[in-house]
Formats: sequence, C-alpha cells, structure tokens
Amino acid sequence: MTEEVFPESWREGLYQAIHRRRDVRAQFRPGRVPEEVLARVLTAAHHAPSVGFMQPWDFVVLRDLGVRRKVLEAFERAHAAEAEALSAGKREAYLKLKLEGILESALNLCVTCDRTRFGETGLGRTAQPRMDLYSVVCAVQNLWLAARAEGMGVGWVSILRPEDLKAALGIPEGIEVVAYLCMGPVSHFPEKPDLEVAGWQARLPLQGMIRVDRWDAPLDGQWPELARALQ
Amino acid sequence: MTEEVFPESWREGLYQAIHRRRDVRAQFRPGRVPEEVLARVLTAAHHAPSVGFMQPWDFVVLRDLGVRRKVLEAFERAHAAEAEALSAGKREAYLKLKLEGILESALNLCVTCDRTRFGETGLGRTAQPRMDLYSVVCAVQNLWLAARAEGMGVGWVSILRPEDLKAALGIPEGIEVVAYLCMGPVSHFPEKPDLEVAGWQARLPLQGMIRVDRWDAPLDGQWPELARALQ
Repeated sequence: MTEEVFPESWREGLYQAIHRRRDVRAQFRPGRVPEEVLARVLTAAHHAPSVGFMQPWDFVVLRDLGVRRKVLEAFERAHAAEAEALSAGKREAYLKLKLEGILESALNLCVTCDRTRFGETGLGRTAQPRMDLYSVVCAVQNLWLAARAEGMGVGWVSILRPEDLKAALGIPEGIEVVAYLCMGPVSHFPEKPDLEVAGWQARLPLQGMIRVDRWDAPLDGQWPELARALQ
Repeated sequence: MTEEVFPESWREGLYQAIHRRRDVRAQFRPGRVPEEVLARVLTAAHHAPSVGFMQPWDFVVLRDLGVRRKVLEAFERAHAAEAEALSAGKREAYLKLKLEGILESALNLCVTCDRTRFGETGLGRTAQPRMDLYSVVCAVQNLWLAARAEGMGVGWVSILRPEDLKAALGIPEGIEVVAYLCMGPVSHFPEKPDLEVAGWQARLPLQGMIRVDRWDAPLDGQWPELARALQ
C-alpha cells in the first residue's frame, strides 16, 4: 500500500455514494437544485475519463416546463411502443411501474456526445468507434454519484426516441443523445432499486459473473481466496 | 436540504476519487491487488445502475501472462493501424505516447455485456438499444473510482480490436467486449491526465459545454448564477 490509498472516511464516502445511489422516478419532491450544487455535479461529470482526452460531452440543463412537456409526450409514445414489444406476461407489470419524473423533478439534463469534436478519427477510437459514447456515459455516472452525495436524486429515462429528443431540444446533426436525466430533491432514497422491490428482477450473485483468465473458467475452483473475499 | 445529504468527509471522499482518478499506463509497479480490495472494487462495479436492472456485465480477471501476451500482440497490431489512420502531424506525437500497461500491471480485466441476458427485448432498451452497453460502462466507472480510493491504478485500453480480445479470451457469440482494463499498484498518480501533460489535448472550459433548455441557448446570459458558480 502506498500513501495514495485514501483515508477511511474518504473511501467510506465513495462506497456510500456507490451503494446508496438510486435510479429515482417516484420520489422527486418540490424544491430546487442550488447553483453551487449543480456546478459541483457538472464539474464532476466533466472530470470523467474520455478517449483521447476528447471530452465529447455537452449538457443541456432544462428548467422550462414547456420543453419538458414535449419530452413527456415523447416518453408516452415510446412507453406505449415498448409495452407493445414486451411479452404479455411482462406487460401488465410494466404498465404499473413509474418510469420517469420529467415534470416532478427540479431539473432535466440531456447529456450528448459530439462525435467529431476533434475530427472524424482519434486516439483510441479506431478499433473501438463507440469509445466517445462510452466516455459520455462515464461522465453521467460521475454526475449521478456526485448528485447522490449532494442529496439530489437522479433518474435516467431511456424510454425516449433520440430523434424526438433532438427535435424537442433543437439538437443538430452529428450530436448524439446519450442520456436524458431527471434531477432534484427527493422525499427519500429507497433502500433497494425499484425494479428489485417490484419483483421485476432480482439482484444477481456477483460470484457467478467473475471468470479467471478465460471466459470458460469460473471463479470457483480457480481462485478460492477471491471467492471467499466476495462472501 | 434533507438528511440524505452526505456529511462533508464523505462528499470529500467522492470528489477526491473523481478528481484524482487517472487513466494509468506508465506508472504501474510490481505488486499485487489484495483479494479483499479486488472484491470491494468488483462489488462497486456490480452496484452500477443497469437498464431494466439487467446487470448485463461479466468480469474476466486476467492474471495469466500467456493470455496477456496475446492481448499485447493484438494491441500492437491495432496501434500500428491507428497510427496509420492519424494525420502525419499527429502520428509522430502518437508514437511517443505510452498507451497500455498490459504486462506491467498486476491484473487485467475484461468487462463484457451479455446483450440477451434476459431475452432480446427489455425495459428501457426498445427506443435506445445501446442502454445495456451503457450500463456496463457505468460499472466500469464505479470500478475505476473504487480502485482509485484503494490506491490502485486503472487504465482503459481501447486500442484493441474486440474480435482479437474475444479470440484470446474465448468469449462466445452474443457477448460484447465493452472494456479492457489494466489494474494494479502504481508508483504515483499523476496530477494531470497524461494527454494533457503531453500537449495532445487541453482540458476544455466547462462553461462552454452547458446549454439552457435548448441546444442553441448557451449558459452565459441565460443563467448568470450558474455561470458564476462554475468559476
């Protein structure tokens, strides 16, 4: 261990943010996001890793309810289409879920990727062209964790056609929508994910997702010390 | 503010992890990742958000140097191809950069996405089919921040053709490689990103990346309190 290991209270803060973060839809309450909080949260996003230090993100912060109503209409269309696409067994449960907080949250945020910010090609994108999009997702995760530490809920609404979002917000060609987020004060942060509580899907055991050196070598047997540490 | 706002030392810990995280290539030193540290870091990844609570990730942890040498050969091929694709002006600078730590790091990690974990369709993926991949990226960012807090460096190597990685690790059809990471003890964490220090690319001013309500409404003028808070 070097002195670069964080002190206990700092590590605790990071792990608490990771484990207490929730995808918030139903718990938004009236209230605002103070500017200094929003500034810290956006700065956290901007300090995400990016391929070739490309920093391909932009952040559209939505306060206006008129624009957000257009987004809600787009959600309703996409929601109906998704309900159709699900199996009949899942559809009934799906229609009971609260899946967005577009109007109830203090703010909405659309996070985009400028895919040609420094030209068509770039360091780290030749073999894996989606790396710029992935950089933007890293920024979203930083933002989400920072918001949690500041007591602000965030919910990622992916039941939206990107073309509808681009039309509602006037986003030009060449800019890709990566995330549409609702953010604001909440009544509380639930202890477990909504979809776990609703019985939609259980949390999977991590042990079964770890493999050693090759895909077909499961953790058990290969690395008993790690299997033990995970218990 | 509710009681859900984190205490100062916890918030500090999260922000320090976000701001001190680096994409490590040149600073790996001999040493190992203790199993309890690796367990905490993987658990942090597993607590990332995922679309429809799909948890589509798997983690191949590579200790074996034989497999890693095959990956290094794949890196060298992709690196040569990328150098070719860059402009002559960028190529010379590119060839001087250290861009991977595959053999020097204690461990490598391949993080994958099982795109059909719970069937072909699912909640939140109908309008935005890449959401499962984005969930895996959120897991990578959690892992990266946790490793930083534990004093472990992480570097994301994207100069690798996914087909080469799949062949080297025996990853089957239907599983997509999202990230290939090097992880381990480091001599130190540089104060600034390597590519910033090398003059490859400067950090962009965040103010210019924030828009209000619509794409064509820049922050300045629209929201002076937020512009001030960002200074």
